[in-house]
Parts: sequence; structure tokens; C-alpha cells
Amino acid sequence: MLTLGVDDLERSVAFYRDGLGWTTPGIIGQEFSHGEVAFFDLQPGLKLALFPRENLAHDAGIARTPPSATELSLGQNVRDAQEVDAAMERARRAGAKIIKPAQKTFYGGYAGYFADPDGHLWEVAFNPALLPD
Amino acid sequence: MLTLGVDDLERSVAFYRDGLGWTTPGIIGQEFSHGEVAFFDLQPGLKLALFPRENLAHDAGIARTPPSATELSLGQNVRDAQEVDAAMERARRAGAKIIKPAQKTFYGGYAGYFADPDGHLWEVAFNPALLPD
Repeated sequence: MLTLGVDDLERSVAFYRDGLGWTTPGIIGQEFSHGEVAFFDLQPGLKLALFPRENLAHDAGIARTPPSATELSLGQNVRDAQEVDAAMERARRAGAKIIKPAQKTFYGGYAGYFADPDGHLWEVAFNPALLPD
Repeated sequence: MLTLGVDDLERSVAFYRDGLGWTTPGIIGQEFSHGEVAFFDLQPGLKLALFPRENLAHDAGIARTPPSATELSLGQNVRDAQEVDAAMERARRAGAKIIKPAQKTFYGGYAGYFADPDGHLWEVAFNPALLPD
């Protein structure tokens, strides 16, 4: 389970569901205090959870902290440069901030970065040494 | 690819490899400027990359930012409460900070949180509604 802390759950669900086209049953857990969450199936055995930062802080018993872009990056490895371009364009249309336009990488691949509405980094990469299954 | 920004790559590799017992070929990429990275196979189709925050900032072309604990949480769903306790104990012995000792959850499960050497949250959870494959 990959849980991302978000500042506005509805905005984030709209970005991933309506913008990127990912599948979710929508926001659940409203019946619990600090329980609102939305799950997306990313691949077998891996779900994405969008969880308000406030709820994550409450659940873990820690202080809510401000965004920090270099905490993590989520990478999608695709099969070729064209798929990188297509994914970056889809993200741009969904309202993502383009952090680094797709370009050749030092390892002989091709990749770009975008950020979701909370600044979480996503990298879309073609890496000849790490092709997806 | 799940990439975590870290402040001390050797310390983080020691934590995940020697402490938690996860498998990695070790640190690679030293031949590239800002290229040092360590990969771990988490499950089919999912790798963990430990990447110095400085390298992540350089790669994405953004400023390095300080740690923020509510950016994300990485969840391991296990089969029962005993597995939660075992994983939390292993993390503690590996030097993890126990953020929330394992306890019953509002959704009828049992879970605890620990933090890796950079403060990245990991949750080990037994959730009767989300059993692992």
C-alpha cells in the first residue's frame, strides 16, 4: 500500500481518477473520524491510497508537516520514449505541473517528471535496462 | 518504482538490507555524477529505490527540501496480528523508530507504524478487509 498524504482529498481524487483515468471506488471512510481515504488499484498487490495529511498525522500519532518534494518519487517504467511522451502529455492535460519535460537520461533512457496537486513527484521513464514486465 | 529520498545512502542500505533483511545488489551508479542509488526488489513489478535527496533534487531539477513525515506512508499488509508484531519487532531491532506500537485499529484490524532512518513512515497492518494475495 502506497499512501500519499494530500491536502485536499477531492482535488486529488479528481486528478488521479478523472485526469489520469485511474480506477477507484471513490472516497470512503467518512463514517470514521479522520477516516476519509480513497484507494486505487495500481497493479496486482499494490494499491495507492490518497489520505489527507491530517488523517495520516492522526493515524500515526505525529504532527502534520508541510509538503516536501524530495521525500519520494514514484516511477512508472514504460516500454519506449513514445509512451513516456504520451503519459507526460496526459498528466499535463490533467493539470499536473511539469517538473522536467521528458528528455534523454544519463543512463541511456528517456524520462520526465511531473507533480501531482500536492507536489508528489512522478517520473515516467523508459529505461532500456529496466523494462516493465 | 518507489523511490525514497535519503540523507545517507549507506545508512539506509544498511537499515533495509542488514536490518530488515531485504535483498539488494547494493549501491550502484557511482560512476555517474549524482547517480548513486540502491534498488531492492519488493514484489513482482515493484522495486524500491533508495536515492540520496540531493540526487533526486538534481535529477528532477528541483531544490532539495527537508524531510516531512506526512508526505507518505508505505504499508505492508500481513495476514494476522502475530505477523504485525513480528515485523514491528524486526524493525525495532534494525534501529527503526517505533512511531506507533502495534494496536487495534478503528477498522477492526491491528497495525503499527515505524520510521526508517530518514523518517519515512512504514505501516505494518493486518486488515481483515484487505488481506494480501
